[in-house]
Amino acid sequence: MQHEASYRQTPATTFNRRKHRGTYDAETIHNIVNTSSVCHVGFQPSPDDPYPVVLPMIAQIAVYPPDAGDDVAPACYLHGYVSSRLMRLGGDGLPVCIEATKVDGFTMALTPFNHSYNYRSAMIQGDAAVVEDPDEKIWAMQLITNAVVPDRWAHTRVPPDAGEMQSTRIMKVRIERASAKVKGHVPSDEKKDLRRDDVVDDVWTGIIPVWETFGEPVPSPYNRVKETPAHIADFVKNENLNAMEFATEAASAAEPSKSGAS
Amino acid sequence: MQHEASYRQTPATTFNRRKHRGTYDAETIHNIVNTSSVCHVGFQPSPDDPYPVVLPMIAQIAVYPPDAGDDVAPACYLHGYVSSRLMRLGGDGLPVCIEATKVDGFTMALTPFNHSYNYRSAMIQGDAAVVEDPDEKIWAMQLITNAVVPDRWAHTRVPPDAGEMQSTRIMKVRIERASAKVKGHVPSDEKKDLRRDDVVDDVWTGIIPVWETFGEPVPSPYNRVKETPAHIADFVKNENLNAMEFATEAASAAEPSKSGAS
Repeated sequence: MQHEASYRQTPATTFNRRKHRGTYDAETIHNIVNTSSVCHVGFQPSPDDPYPVVLPMIAQIAVYPPDAGDDVAPACYLHGYVSSRLMRLGGDGLPVCIEATKVDGFTMALTPFNHSYNYRSAMIQGDAAVVEDPDEKIWAMQLITNAVVPDRWAHTRVPPDAGEMQSTRIMKVRIERASAKVKGHVPSDEKKDLRRDDVVDDVWTGIIPVWETFGEPVPSPYNRVKETPAHIADFVKNENLNAMEFATEAASAAEPSKSGAS
Repeated sequence: MQHEASYRQTPATTFNRRKHRGTYDAETIHNIVNTSSVCHVGFQPSPDDPYPVVLPMIAQIAVYPPDAGDDVAPACYLHGYVSSRLMRLGGDGLPVCIEATKVDGFTMALTPFNHSYNYRSAMIQGDAAVVEDPDEKIWAMQLITNAVVPDRWAHTRVPPDAGEMQSTRIMKVRIERASAKVKGHVPSDEKKDLRRDDVVDDVWTGIIPVWETFGEPVPSPYNRVKETPAHIADFVKNENLNAMEFATEAASAAEPSKSGAS
């Protein structure tokens, strides 16, 4: 079976409002999750507890084995230090929701009502289980390490020893449903306000771009490598440039919302 | 009854690992939530659906009425364009979890196993209901607008008219449990690796600071206010300075973890 490039539309993931912003496109969804430093994983910790739990974790969507191509559906791999409760629960497939949101701009309109964010947001629902296969586990550990800083794995003391393998838990989420919302519009106000000179002459409207910036790397007290290595320096330089360009271009190129006021 | 400055420790919020990072301090928890552009709200959409939902929303913790002082416990107010499903469910108190995470640095160690983030993360569990009282609702709308950009409310066309009041929904979450984790340590490696010259001479260890940056505001196509107003320009300048200082100082002042390897 060939994996589809889009996720299925289901009643639970059908967009109730502003349908034009919603997408089931796999590349869009994977990109939002895979470029987020942190994703937010929700689950029900116990049938006796009325409250769900949401924990920050590192998530990466990928296909294993990596050469499987379109025959295997991508899964979402999770890693997080704060996840021991989730890990303990994940024996036979725990229903989870993984959400990632990147805010690209603050959209300032004439009225508080029409203020909004420009953002990209992805939501995945599926069943999480602990990765037991040692080959898949070490592949996922490498995937996640290199997702934080490209090529980091090869620049550390690897492979992990038996104790490290034992103490690391990776969860694999079989993706049942997935969707994304992407909003990148200029502010949009009602005719009743746009007609009022006293309002339009007085209220600044526009977009404040926002992005994640990385600073100058700070060596640890026991670091003995004098120069910041290229894989770190390049990461900082490239990420900063790309993120700044993306957010500022998104703000400048933003178009009016198709649905009018947003 | 005077509201406590700390939240109760409960079995569900007791930290299983690395207890020294956990806190129930109200100021710490409120600060993480109130300075996050986006929080992540988890809930169970239906008893028939196995999967929870996590949605991005704007959250602010505050006391209403604002002059109530210590007699009233703070609640968490939620607003989000993507929240129509949550809003419809929230009639009699929907159990929710609100999570906010700020990543302050990437902590690069000798081994992938000891890599981590420096971060501040808060989790609140409680019961959400729609705010019906018009005075509390308009107060919360103002609170949330000014949380995005200080003093923005007064610089827009206010008050909201009847239609805008009608179309806006604010949720109020009574806080049942709350906790935070704060981690800001230098990398921490095992003695077995620190003893190896080949490893320590070869692997760069340290912290890459990270923070949210705001760019030059971009006017909308219908903006007629020529100069960026002070409340916007000051916000961008102050936020950028504070965020950069916080992340770079946190990286430079980071101390070894009390528990050894982290």
